[in-house]
Amino acid sequence: MSLLPKAFEQLVDAFSKISGVGPRTAERYAYFILKGDPAKARNLASMLEALHSQIKVCPKTFTLIDADKEISSLYTDTNRDKKMVALVAEPFDVIALEKTNLFKGTYHVLGGLISPIDGIEPEHLRVRELITRIKEDEVREVILATNASIEGETTAIYIQKELAGLSVKVTRLARGLPIGVDLEYADQITLGRALEGRQEF
Amino acid sequence: MSLLPKAFEQLVDAFSKISGVGPRTAERYAYFILKGDPAKARNLASMLEALHSQIKVCPKTFTLIDADKEISSLYTDTNRDKKMVALVAEPFDVIALEKTNLFKGTYHVLGGLISPIDGIEPEHLRVRELITRIKEDEVREVILATNASIEGETTAIYIQKELAGLSVKVTRLARGLPIGVDLEYADQITLGRALEGRQEF
Repeated sequence: MSLLPKAFEQLVDAFSKISGVGPRTAERYAYFILKGDPAKARNLASMLEALHSQIKVCPKTFTLIDADKEISSLYTDTNRDKKMVALVAEPFDVIALEKTNLFKGTYHVLGGLISPIDGIEPEHLRVRELITRIKEDEVREVILATNASIEGETTAIYIQKELAGLSVKVTRLARGLPIGVDLEYADQITLGRALEGRQEF
Repeated sequence: MSLLPKAFEQLVDAFSKISGVGPRTAERYAYFILKGDPAKARNLASMLEALHSQIKVCPKTFTLIDADKEISSLYTDTNRDKKMVALVAEPFDVIALEKTNLFKGTYHVLGGLISPIDGIEPEHLRVRELITRIKEDEVREVILATNASIEGETTAIYIQKELAGLSVKVTRLARGLPIGVDLEYADQITLGRALEGRQEF
C-alpha cells in the first residue's frame, strides 16, 4: 500500500528526474507546491509547457533566443565586433562574460565540452559551424573562454588544433590568482599558472 | 536588453519561488529541462497541473490522500488500533514512522508546529480536531511524535496541556542517544536527556 497520494508520488518522480534533485529534495519541492496556492502550481506548469516551443537556438551564435527572433541581438547589434568571437561551452557562460561589461565582440556556443566519460566527443560540439563562421565573417580573433577544468582545457587544445590552418588568432582567458584570494590559500596549479603567465608591471 | 529568452527567465522565476531554490539553482533546473526531451517537460507540467485537484486531506487523520478516496487507509485499516494515535506535525512524518514497521495505531497530522516567528500560532494547528477525535474514538493513548526541536517541544507541551482534562494517556517519543552514535560525539542536550530518561536494564 502506498502511503502517499498517487499524484504526489508522480510529481516527486518527475522532479527527481532533474539532475541534482534527489528523492528527498523532490519530496520537499512537491510538498511546498502542494501547500501553496494552486494558481502558482498552474503557473509553473504553463511555463514548463511553453518552454521548448518558445525558445530556439540562434543559428549564428548558438545562444538561446526567443522563438520569434531570427538571430541573437548579441550578433545583430552593430556596436559589437563580429570579427572577435568568444568561444564558450554553454549559453550561461555568455551571461557571465556579459556581466564583466568588458567584451564587445560576439559569441559562439560550442554546446558542451569534450568529456568521453559523459559520452561527449568532439563531433558533438559545434566546431564545423565555428569554422564556417570564421571564414564568412573574416573573424580576426577567437577567444577560448572555456572552464579551467580538465574538460575545458582538453576542448581548448582540440579547438586550437582545429583552427591551426586558418588565419585567425587564437587566444584564451588568462589563468591566475582570482581577485581577493590570498596567495597562501591558492592551490598549486593555479599558482603555477599565475607564475607561468606573469605579466610585466 | 535581456540576454535570455523570456520563456526561460519566466521558468527560472517560477522555480525560484520554491522554498530552498535560489536563482542559480533555478537556472540550472530550467537549463536541464530545456536541454532535455520536451515530452519530459510536458510530463512535469501535467503533474503540477493535476497536483492540487487529485490530492485531498483525509478528514479523520489529516494525512494526504487521493482525491477519490473518502478516508485514509491508515484509518480504515481494521488491523490498526484506532484508540492509539500518533500526533505528527506534517504528512511526511507519517511515512517516517510507518517505515519503522512498529506502530500499529493511527495518525493525526497537526499541520505544523507552533512557531510565532513564522506566524504559526496554536490556533493554526488541528488541535480541536484532535480533541473531537479523542472523544469520538475513545482514544486511549496519544503519542506526541513531534521533532526534537524548540518548535516541536513547545508544541508537545502545548498539546499536553490542552489534553490534560481528558481521560487519555499522553506519551512522547523517547529522547536519547541515536543508534550508532558514539557517546563522545553526542551533544550535551541529547546526552542529558538520555541520562534523565535512563531505562532499567
